[in-house]
Amino acid sequence: MQLDLLLFASGAAPIFSPQHLLATAEIPVTTVSSADALWLWIAFAIGIVALIGALLFARSVIGSDSGTAAMQEIAAAIREGAEAFLARQYKAIGWMAVILAVVLYAGYRAYPPTAAMALKVVFSFLVGAACSGISGFMGMFVSIRANLRTAAAARTSLSAALRLALHGGAVTGLIVVGLALLGISTLFLLFGGLQNPQTVPYQLVGFGFGASLVALFAQLGGGIYTKAADVGADLVGKVEAGIPEDDPRNPAVIADLVGDNVGDCAGRGADIFESSAAESVGAMILGATLYPVLGVKGILFPLIVHAINIVASMIGIGVVRSKDGEDPMHALNRGFYATSFLALAGFALAVHFLLQDRWWLLAAGAVGIATSFLFVSITEYYTETRFRPVRSIAEACVTGPATNIITGLAVGMETPTLPVIVISGALLLSYYFGVLGLQDATGITQYARGIFGTAIATMGMLSSAAYILAMDTFGPITDNAGGIAEMSNQPHEVRDRTDRLDAAGNTTKALTKGYAIGSASLAAFLLFSAYLETVHDIVRHRVEAAGFTLPPGWSFSSVNLANVPVFVGALLGAMLTYLFSSMAIRAVGRAAEMVIQDVRAQFKENPGIMDGTSRPDYGRCVHIVTGAALKEMILPGALAVLMPVTIGILFRHLSARFHLVSSSDLPTSMAHIVNLSGAESVAAFLMVGTISGILLAMLMNNGGGAWDNAKKLIESGMYGGKGSDAHKAAVVGDTVGDPFKDTAGPSLHVLIKLLATVTLVLAPLFV
Amino acid sequence: MQLDLLLFASGAAPIFSPQHLLATAEIPVTTVSSADALWLWIAFAIGIVALIGALLFARSVIGSDSGTAAMQEIAAAIREGAEAFLARQYKAIGWMAVILAVVLYAGYRAYPPTAAMALKVVFSFLVGAACSGISGFMGMFVSIRANLRTAAAARTSLSAALRLALHGGAVTGLIVVGLALLGISTLFLLFGGLQNPQTVPYQLVGFGFGASLVALFAQLGGGIYTKAADVGADLVGKVEAGIPEDDPRNPAVIADLVGDNVGDCAGRGADIFESSAAESVGAMILGATLYPVLGVKGILFPLIVHAINIVASMIGIGVVRSKDGEDPMHALNRGFYATSFLALAGFALAVHFLLQDRWWLLAAGAVGIATSFLFVSITEYYTETRFRPVRSIAEACVTGPATNIITGLAVGMETPTLPVIVISGALLLSYYFGVLGLQDATGITQYARGIFGTAIATMGMLSSAAYILAMDTFGPITDNAGGIAEMSNQPHEVRDRTDRLDAAGNTTKALTKGYAIGSASLAAFLLFSAYLETVHDIVRHRVEAAGFTLPPGWSFSSVNLANVPVFVGALLGAMLTYLFSSMAIRAVGRAAEMVIQDVRAQFKENPGIMDGTSRPDYGRCVHIVTGAALKEMILPGALAVLMPVTIGILFRHLSARFHLVSSSDLPTSMAHIVNLSGAESVAAFLMVGTISGILLAMLMNNGGGAWDNAKKLIESGMYGGKGSDAHKAAVVGDTVGDPFKDTAGPSLHVLIKLLATVTLVLAPLFV
Repeated sequence: MQLDLLLFASGAAPIFSPQHLLATAEIPVTTVSSADALWLWIAFAIGIVALIGALLFARSVIGSDSGTAAMQEIAAAIREGAEAFLARQYKAIGWMAVILAVVLYAGYRAYPPTAAMALKVVFSFLVGAACSGISGFMGMFVSIRANLRTAAAARTSLSAALRLALHGGAVTGLIVVGLALLGISTLFLLFGGLQNPQTVPYQLVGFGFGASLVALFAQLGGGIYTKAADVGADLVGKVEAGIPEDDPRNPAVIADLVGDNVGDCAGRGADIFESSAAESVGAMILGATLYPVLGVKGILFPLIVHAINIVASMIGIGVVRSKDGEDPMHALNRGFYATSFLALAGFALAVHFLLQDRWWLLAAGAVGIATSFLFVSITEYYTETRFRPVRSIAEACVTGPATNIITGLAVGMETPTLPVIVISGALLLSYYFGVLGLQDATGITQYARGIFGTAIATMGMLSSAAYILAMDTFGPITDNAGGIAEMSNQPHEVRDRTDRLDAAGNTTKALTKGYAIGSASLAAFLLFSAYLETVHDIVRHRVEAAGFTLPPGWSFSSVNLANVPVFVGALLGAMLTYLFSSMAIRAVGRAAEMVIQDVRAQFKENPGIMDGTSRPDYGRCVHIVTGAALKEMILPGALAVLMPVTIGILFRHLSARFHLVSSSDLPTSMAHIVNLSGAESVAAFLMVGTISGILLAMLMNNGGGAWDNAKKLIESGMYGGKGSDAHKAAVVGDTVGDPFKDTAGPSLHVLIKLLATVTLVLAPLFV
Repeated sequence: MQLDLLLFASGAAPIFSPQHLLATAEIPVTTVSSADALWLWIAFAIGIVALIGALLFARSVIGSDSGTAAMQEIAAAIREGAEAFLARQYKAIGWMAVILAVVLYAGYRAYPPTAAMALKVVFSFLVGAACSGISGFMGMFVSIRANLRTAAAARTSLSAALRLALHGGAVTGLIVVGLALLGISTLFLLFGGLQNPQTVPYQLVGFGFGASLVALFAQLGGGIYTKAADVGADLVGKVEAGIPEDDPRNPAVIADLVGDNVGDCAGRGADIFESSAAESVGAMILGATLYPVLGVKGILFPLIVHAINIVASMIGIGVVRSKDGEDPMHALNRGFYATSFLALAGFALAVHFLLQDRWWLLAAGAVGIATSFLFVSITEYYTETRFRPVRSIAEACVTGPATNIITGLAVGMETPTLPVIVISGALLLSYYFGVLGLQDATGITQYARGIFGTAIATMGMLSSAAYILAMDTFGPITDNAGGIAEMSNQPHEVRDRTDRLDAAGNTTKALTKGYAIGSASLAAFLLFSAYLETVHDIVRHRVEAAGFTLPPGWSFSSVNLANVPVFVGALLGAMLTYLFSSMAIRAVGRAAEMVIQDVRAQFKENPGIMDGTSRPDYGRCVHIVTGAALKEMILPGALAVLMPVTIGILFRHLSARFHLVSSSDLPTSMAHIVNLSGAESVAAFLMVGTISGILLAMLMNNGGGAWDNAKKLIESGMYGGKGSDAHKAAVVGDTVGDPFKDTAGPSLHVLIKLLATVTLVLAPLFV
């Protein structure tokens, strides 16, 4: 086996074998019964089914009619650009992953009892990063081919094009969830989960970290790329040269279309992969704490939920059929309802088979599913042209750009209100249901019961992730299809069809962002708890290694904001989200500046471009924006990784030096072994950073989306329509909203989760 | 005495007399020695000195030359408008205060052991509200007279005008700090502080709440007024009618000048009054916990710091003299340095006489003084035209309003970085110095020592408050002087002088906002601790009333974010700051809309206005914006007061019903007496709301200031100067920044402190 080779090569094989684990395990070894192991095999099998399903969808999409030569030429240029970007981006991310792997290994080796874990964590980190990379790559591989086929299918019927685009999206959805499931199950098996189910979940934390690292850079790099190309193309094309959007004379037009793929498609794919991965590992850690009650089934439950997700989503995608003349959103929504309903049914079965008919836990799962519905509805309310918020922004455009911006920001600042109330309700309810569902579980604290309830709700929310992701990838595919139709001068009715699909794609992209931030908020709690649990586990190891035993009832479950260093950690966490957003937004500005300069230079060097007699050099623009986006993603990305690490290590030293105390400090006799003040500050950093990040992300996603649609509303003829002063004001708002909703906002989702996984993985360094 | 009459009328005199307190006091009564009492009398005396000083400054200002008849006519219109607004505003606030007093009384009466306190809290609430109202009124009384005299003095020399404007500002500064000092000392005396110094500080919490309630409405109402008038006057005057700023033909021009007074002058006065009041009471409560070590001197220390503040600021104001040709900011800065130096010297004396030569505590005070310097410098960096941030915004104006807004928001989001680092360092250092300074204090926890250090730092920061406030009020006075000079057609050199003063005034206003948010951040911790201490005190009362005693070492000092209801409280706190800002910004938009409609109507009804043959009806515009601002302040103000109350009471019930646990819960035997989950959720609501509010306020204050000065930079001739496209883009940014920096941002400062005082006062309802 490859793993054995790797371990052998590193000379570490003996420490790493299951035999070793068995010999040092502190918890009595409880080999998993073959009946229970069956569930792991089922998860494994459904993971493979997902990949096969993705393959079939991909074959059917790629086998479809690929349109005219003109269409193919444009699609080839997009494909080339996207592949070149991804190749360079993955190279950069790969180097960072290797460096981090070394740091991680060294960090873990420096802390004695975890030397054996070092390799496992590093290995799972690399596997997580690789899986995330593969799912981003595969998803994009299909979507940059599906765009062309969707444009071609639009020549015959709307329904055919809709199905093609959704099937293209389904590839991403299935690969992402399938790889998360397969990756975790494989590592669980390899690390000896069937022999030692209670400790192995703690060893999987590297997987989530690898996934979020790739996700952060994928989203950040892609987000900067897409908006730099978009803003650059618009400012120099529409404003300076006066040519329409997607006009083939604009040298940045291909870069703009490439951007949709690398930003929305690869970026969000990595985002959801990361959610599925990190939140499953977190839930498995919490499941491990309930081992005395639920056995190994409690640990495997999150994997089975993903299996349900895959089956439900495949059926959901299969049922989507649009009647001609119908709004494509209706068809997509029907699929979502079907998926959610099937997921709920599957959840009920899983509760029956795995959670001993604890129906209150099904109620907690239903809370999660309801939360995803509510988030999608709230996002619709704030970003669709039918409702008050977008209408009020459009109206404010009449008095100029300033009032448009003020109204948009006011709407943006209002948007967190309802989602926060929903999340608060969901957390409290699922906590309560958790307590009720595990009421008979003796030896388990009320707190652990409640937290497991919130974990189940998170699983419920994620149980339609594959479908949501398919809908999301539908966005860039239809956007590209529209661009291809436009650039290849398709007849009016074809462009009308692609426009309608594109409008639906814009909506699905906004909804997915709402869903992603919702799942991040709900999952935040699960990840905090996993962090606290991990610190607790480390403390137990260290104390026992020093020949002591933990006092009964002691737990590291306190993050006391009334402590100065903890409060300072919280303050810094919130500050990071602002600084990170600021950097991401500036990065777009700088990269866009380079696009503008190149386009101006091309117009100047080659006057034939504007006459339509000679073709612009699309590749040069793609190359420039690729380099700029990759350069710009480094600084904010590094900040996101380094700041929690620095704070954790700094505060550990500070707390020793400044005699700071933690509310969880051990009794005096053991106080010399571990100092918890650093770990507690990091927890506050993580939690308040998460709260601040959730609110800022909502402000930016929904504010940006509302500005975009206010512009569309005016373009549809309101307040003077296209070309009016109100329209000019609306364009200003839309441009401001672009880096908000497509760069900073989505990157913040990932930042939040990266903070959770980086602290989870590096916890041993903070204690 | 009036107090006796009041108590007699309410039939409560017997419970309220010092004799009663003596009879029920749980802590052995330790009458203050006459040597110690002397310090209270010194504080008292210096409070009176401040008022006399204010009177003298006011007399000298009002006695100065009051200019030409044309100037007087304009000034009279401003005076009338400002007084009319204040009268109506105070009436509205008065009613709310009365209603809240009744609610407060009822709330306190419902919780048995605090029935005797109910009257005291309500009484001190009303005194606090009244003092805050009086200081706002008196400050404005002088500044709406000083504006005219400053304009008149500008006809002779810059230096004379500068001194006049600063002396006008000094009246506000001295009255605000003097009344805070007098109010607290008087209440302390009346409530029997000399007989029972340890319990009386807890009874003063109503004073801070009264002050912050008035401050919130004063700042919110004034902020909405000033920006509605400004934006309205600009949009319809400059943009639609094409007349310059401050043109007498604009019917909204007087309303605009009134706005500067009611927004900047009365609003910020109430803000700083509130800081001085609430933070002194908080520090006295913490001083009370150190009674065994420091005696009554520790409790009186905050009052002596204010006395130092008054003396140092009076001298500082006295030394300000500007050489002709010099930048007025240099002269003002010299005064600030002198004040800070004197305050530090005074602090050293106070440490010697009151804190037993604990020099580490002087170091903590020095940290506070250094923090105020750093905050002022950072604000300068972000808002002055000399530095990169404003220059980058001005440069972005070249590519249009969208890039201007994007860059401004990116700068705004960057601005919290350095201040947060400074605050973090200040908190950690002063905590450490507190621990060192009180190392020999036996029987006091390390935590209490450290927290006292942070309280001393806050006192240090506030020890130049009177001077800072004088500089701040300098702003609206010089702004108005410029308007009066402009409207009365003064010769060029006069207007040049007032312009230079006005520019300095813009800077001082920005710096004061930086100072105010800095002191709010540093004080936040002090107020949290006071809240925790108050809850602890309530629990002790209830437990003892039920015949139990608290377990040794138990303390309510935990705000555990890892608890679901606590986390939900935190999430809701952060959400409130966004929703509040959204409401405040929208309120400006709606009120401005009414101004625009009236101005349009006046131009239509009376065509003579534009010809200059007939005068517009300034009063009508003033009347309209007064009504609109007062109406619009109700909803966000009510939200700020009601949300913490609702959450506290709701979570208390929820926690009982949902079996939620708090990490500070009492042992099972006493658990039925109090449930702490509600109080803990409120604490998290307060703390995370404060963090989020601080960051949002910095974003808005500095972002808004930077946009404003980027416009000024372009107007000075860069990037094409006035009338260029870059200038038009800059005007958009400035307009967006207006409600940010003058309505929502400053209101957030007050909101943060209101949250602290409302939770402090209503703590008995949450337990």
